[in-house]
Amino acid sequence: MSKHLKKEFVTKTKQPSFSNRGMSFEDYINQSNEYYLSKEMAIVHKKPTPVQIVHVNYPKRSAAVITEAYFREASTTDYNGLYKGHYIDFEAKETKNKTSFPLHNFHDHQIKHMKQCLNQQGVVFVLIWFSTLQRCFFLPAKHVIEYWESKENKRKSIPLKVIEKVGYELELGIAPIIPYLTVIDHYILKGDSVYEK
Amino acid sequence: MSKHLKKEFVTKTKQPSFSNRGMSFEDYINQSNEYYLSKEMAIVHKKPTPVQIVHVNYPKRSAAVITEAYFREASTTDYNGLYKGHYIDFEAKETKNKTSFPLHNFHDHQIKHMKQCLNQQGVVFVLIWFSTLQRCFFLPAKHVIEYWESKENKRKSIPLKVIEKVGYELELGIAPIIPYLTVIDHYILKGDSVYEK
Repeated sequence: MSKHLKKEFVTKTKQPSFSNRGMSFEDYINQSNEYYLSKEMAIVHKKPTPVQIVHVNYPKRSAAVITEAYFREASTTDYNGLYKGHYIDFEAKETKNKTSFPLHNFHDHQIKHMKQCLNQQGVVFVLIWFSTLQRCFFLPAKHVIEYWESKENKRKSIPLKVIEKVGYELELGIAPIIPYLTVIDHYILKGDSVYEK
Repeated sequence: MSKHLKKEFVTKTKQPSFSNRGMSFEDYINQSNEYYLSKEMAIVHKKPTPVQIVHVNYPKRSAAVITEAYFREASTTDYNGLYKGHYIDFEAKETKNKTSFPLHNFHDHQIKHMKQCLNQQGVVFVLIWFSTLQRCFFLPAKHVIEYWESKENKRKSIPLKVIEKVGYELELGIAPIIPYLTVIDHYILKGDSVYEK
C-alpha cells in the first residue's frame, strides 16, 4: 500500500492482482463503465476506434465485409459521458515507467479537445496506470495541459511525485474496478478546482 | 416557407438548396458542429462508425491495413458533446416520408441510451430531415421514447402533425446550416420541459 493513498477515495476491497488476469487497463475501465451504467450511476462509453473505410464487399446472403480500411488518429479523447448532469471526458493511459508519466501518447488535438471541454465546464481528466508500480491515478486535465505546454519541461513528462501531489490515487476494487466517480463526487460536492484551467 | 415555422428560432439567411449540393443531412450536421466548435460555442463530434476488426496487415514501411472487418450496431446515438456545461446527446435521421417520421431506424439500445441520458439530466433530442418536404425539425427525445413505447402506435411512427406541435422547426442557414443550439438555448434559458421524461 502506498503511503500516498488517500483513504477518502479508496474502496475497502483487497487490491486484485491486476496484471495476472490477462485483462488490460482498458478492459478494467470498460468494466467500471458497465458497472456504473448498470447501477444507473453514470453513462460513459468508449468511442469506437476511428477507421477510414476504403473498400467494402457486399456478398449475397451474408454480412458486408470491409476489405480495406486504415486506422485514423483520434480527434478527441476515448471516453465521454454524463454523470449527475455533468459532462465528463477522459483519456486512459498506461505506462511502464516508475518515476514519471510520459506525454508522448497524446496528440496535439487531444490536448486541444481537453482544453475546449474545460472551457465549456466539462469535468476532464486522465486515468493513469503505472503498470510496474501497480498504481492508478486520477489526474485532472489542467495538469496535463500545463505540462504539455510547459517550455521548460523538455522531456514532456509529469513526475510521479507531482501526480501524487495534484492527482488522486485510486485503489482498485472489485466492482467497479476503477472507482473514478468517487473523485468526481469530491470535485462536485466540495467545489474543488477541477473546472479551473 | 412553412406556415408552422417558429420565427423565434429561425436564422435570417435564405434557405440554401439543400438537395442540390451533393451533401447529405449528416454532412450538414457535421458542418454545423464544426462551425460551433470553431466559434467555441459547443463541442460536438460524430462518433466513429463501430467496426469489428478481424484481421490487420502490417506491411514494412507503410501504414497498417485492415483487411477484414465488419460493421457493428451502434450502442448509443451518433452525436454527443458539451454546450455551456450541459451534456447534449442526439441522433440525426432522414426520411422521404411526407406525413410521418418512421421509427424503424432506431434500435432498442439507442432508445434505452436516450432514456438513460434523460434520467441523468442530459439534453437529448433527434434532428429530423424530411427530404421530400425539405423541412428540418428538432424533436426532444421524450416524444420519440413515448411513441416508441406506445402500444397503440402499431406503425411505430410519429405523425408530422405531432412533430410540428411538440418539436421545433429549424430553417436551414449558411453557418451553421442547422442552428440547433438556438433551440437548446430556449430550453436552458426558459426552463422548458426538455428534462422531463
